[in-house]
Amino acid sequence: MESEAKKWGNGLVNGCQLESETPTNITIKGILGLLMANIDDESKRRVISLGMGDPSVYSCFHTAAVAEESVVDTLRSERFNGYSPTVGLPETRRAIADYLSRDLPYNLSPDDAFVTSGCTQAIDVALSSLVHPGANILLPRPGFPIYELCAAFRHLEVRHFDLLPEKGWEVDLDAVEALADHNTIGMVIINPGNPCGNVYTYQHLKKIAETAKRLKILVIADEVYGHLAFGRNPFVPMGVFGSIVPVLTLGSLSKRWIVPGWRLGWFVINDPCGVFTNPKIVERIKKYFDILGGPATFIQAAVPRILQQTEEVFFEKTINILKQSSDICCDLIKEIPCITCPHKPEGSMAVMVKLNLSLLKDISDDIDFCFKLAKEESVIILPGLTVGMQNWIRITFAVESSSLEEAMGRVKSFYHRHSNQQNGY
Amino acid sequence: MESEAKKWGNGLVNGCQLESETPTNITIKGILGLLMANIDDESKRRVISLGMGDPSVYSCFHTAAVAEESVVDTLRSERFNGYSPTVGLPETRRAIADYLSRDLPYNLSPDDAFVTSGCTQAIDVALSSLVHPGANILLPRPGFPIYELCAAFRHLEVRHFDLLPEKGWEVDLDAVEALADHNTIGMVIINPGNPCGNVYTYQHLKKIAETAKRLKILVIADEVYGHLAFGRNPFVPMGVFGSIVPVLTLGSLSKRWIVPGWRLGWFVINDPCGVFTNPKIVERIKKYFDILGGPATFIQAAVPRILQQTEEVFFEKTINILKQSSDICCDLIKEIPCITCPHKPEGSMAVMVKLNLSLLKDISDDIDFCFKLAKEESVIILPGLTVGMQNWIRITFAVESSSLEEAMGRVKSFYHRHSNQQNGY
Repeated sequence: MESEAKKWGNGLVNGCQLESETPTNITIKGILGLLMANIDDESKRRVISLGMGDPSVYSCFHTAAVAEESVVDTLRSERFNGYSPTVGLPETRRAIADYLSRDLPYNLSPDDAFVTSGCTQAIDVALSSLVHPGANILLPRPGFPIYELCAAFRHLEVRHFDLLPEKGWEVDLDAVEALADHNTIGMVIINPGNPCGNVYTYQHLKKIAETAKRLKILVIADEVYGHLAFGRNPFVPMGVFGSIVPVLTLGSLSKRWIVPGWRLGWFVINDPCGVFTNPKIVERIKKYFDILGGPATFIQAAVPRILQQTEEVFFEKTINILKQSSDICCDLIKEIPCITCPHKPEGSMAVMVKLNLSLLKDISDDIDFCFKLAKEESVIILPGLTVGMQNWIRITFAVESSSLEEAMGRVKSFYHRHSNQQNGY
Repeated sequence: MESEAKKWGNGLVNGCQLESETPTNITIKGILGLLMANIDDESKRRVISLGMGDPSVYSCFHTAAVAEESVVDTLRSERFNGYSPTVGLPETRRAIADYLSRDLPYNLSPDDAFVTSGCTQAIDVALSSLVHPGANILLPRPGFPIYELCAAFRHLEVRHFDLLPEKGWEVDLDAVEALADHNTIGMVIINPGNPCGNVYTYQHLKKIAETAKRLKILVIADEVYGHLAFGRNPFVPMGVFGSIVPVLTLGSLSKRWIVPGWRLGWFVINDPCGVFTNPKIVERIKKYFDILGGPATFIQAAVPRILQQTEEVFFEKTINILKQSSDICCDLIKEIPCITCPHKPEGSMAVMVKLNLSLLKDISDDIDFCFKLAKEESVIILPGLTVGMQNWIRITFAVESSSLEEAMGRVKSFYHRHSNQQNGY
């Protein structure tokens, strides 16, 4: 059997391996899995993860009661066990359009909104329905690695522009201008920012829109952290500038309602001037939905009530916790000499922090830092390389404050043990 | 603005249109939507759809109580609002592996099972993770059009082999042998059959496995209608022959539990001899899951209890209703001279029926038949062209018997009105 197996296996693998390689991109979940596997089981200490933007395990981050009730009700009704249209239930599309229109200078139509299985699927829709041979897309660095992975699977070339830490992680617009060509389909911005925790000003977003207009490229606005802003700048949806340049808005219930596992997202075309909305592109997008498994129909059916009836007090509570956590996080970072935060987070659930390896005697890079930290302290932090920045780390502060304090205390101990300074100071 | 819009739009569209055309495939939902739009609103008659394999609207087809309870419980627990691993929750993978292993001569491991957003996403996983430039896939005709649409989006060449109505819709294995070459990645079978309602014998499935082995191609076994067999042949999962040839089994809760809207499916590698399970391919499949939005975590978490605790009596009830409906359907077909059923359905929820246009005075083809039927009788039936067979129609009999009788009565009236025979006989 063995030689047969080999021949057989190779026959197939040759096809895949030589001509269509598996993308080598690191993913956040992939690296976090490896870090978890590196935890020292003997230590018996509680593992604390500051690795992923999913605080749903903490009781202070439970979803709104109305959200859970709505889903139970639509499930119990037995009216939504069947298929929905692949682009989403009409009432769900309308509710999403209405929800987003509250913050726009024009009204979206239900036809502009498509229901997706989380923001992840919205990313795939954006990239897969726009790709053509030779096409490229401009992605931020640091960014969110699913874009790179998806682009690799869809044979879409990636070009990176930098976000500038010294300017509050604003987009390097000169780089965008230099990178774009006639094969560029669009540029991605993530606002509020992941992994940086920044929130763009109205003025900066307008400049992005004007740049994109000049380059004749779309803006793909990842607003999965939409409204989770607690700093000086209010959250401004990119769709506000839809009359300057067509904007594809990607969003979901995941973060604002703290239900990432519900897989309820949206892909929305903001194009009040009808510049983008060519029937052929819209037809292609619709067709693409026919091959996707979308979110559960009964969860979709709950969306109108969730978007309309969630009370402001629920949102305020989340914002207050995030603000408090981010303050605690920044204060504790200051106590640890080998990490510095160039820009205090103003939104989302994470912050980028720079490693100063010259203060550490036996840490070679961010990967080494995070693996040793996991092993020695049972604390999970994401290596910056995963999001495109070597020798930085991404800390998720959306955890219960006691856990955050405990985790940062352990990072401090880790620093002292690995410091090359006298006594670690 | 207009000339600007035009230039802008064209710039983008040129890219998509010239180099990456929108697939022109007809989909079932697409054509059903057009047929619904063709209903005569003035008639005020109840619309009856025999068009889609989704009987969840009928009270006789409600899901098992334990299924609904399980999902309510996992949602209420608030333990499953967060992300699951992209390949699925470990306990869900184990439950699916155990469920399928009950009918196999070997045991699947949880690592063999991947959780998908319905069977639709399992189709995409199969095609997208195996595709390479120049690759082709062998699909049945008639078949399920999502395969063709997905292949078009993933640049996978499609080659069709016929199913033979005179042989109970068995696979034309000579055609398979003639079509396959070194770029063929696999062949798809759908059993129990959609659109034909056939159930393959153990012997025929074994022959398929032996043919695939000889050709060194995989078998992709679409078993979304698994266990819904009510004729002479019992349902035999293709995985039974996994030691002859590697089998990718696609399935879901959708049909057997009558919850297509829950979007809970699976993609399972049946490969007890380790012929296919090359680490590189498995790695590619796993990576591919990272860009998908899978099913909701709390629905996944309910799967173990659903698979273990659904009582036999629930399945028996469904089988009895389907058998009864298919009998009624076949009897009523016999009363309508312009349609004939070459093979009585033995499983699934649909049957292929041949149109005899020579008995009709003003119907040009199956599309014309179905559109006029929708307009005049408010009855929706799927034109055979949608599933690859012109001048056939697919009738879904999984509807309440009173609706089925009413609908078939209207088809009979339609025949009489359009018959070119004297008095329609």
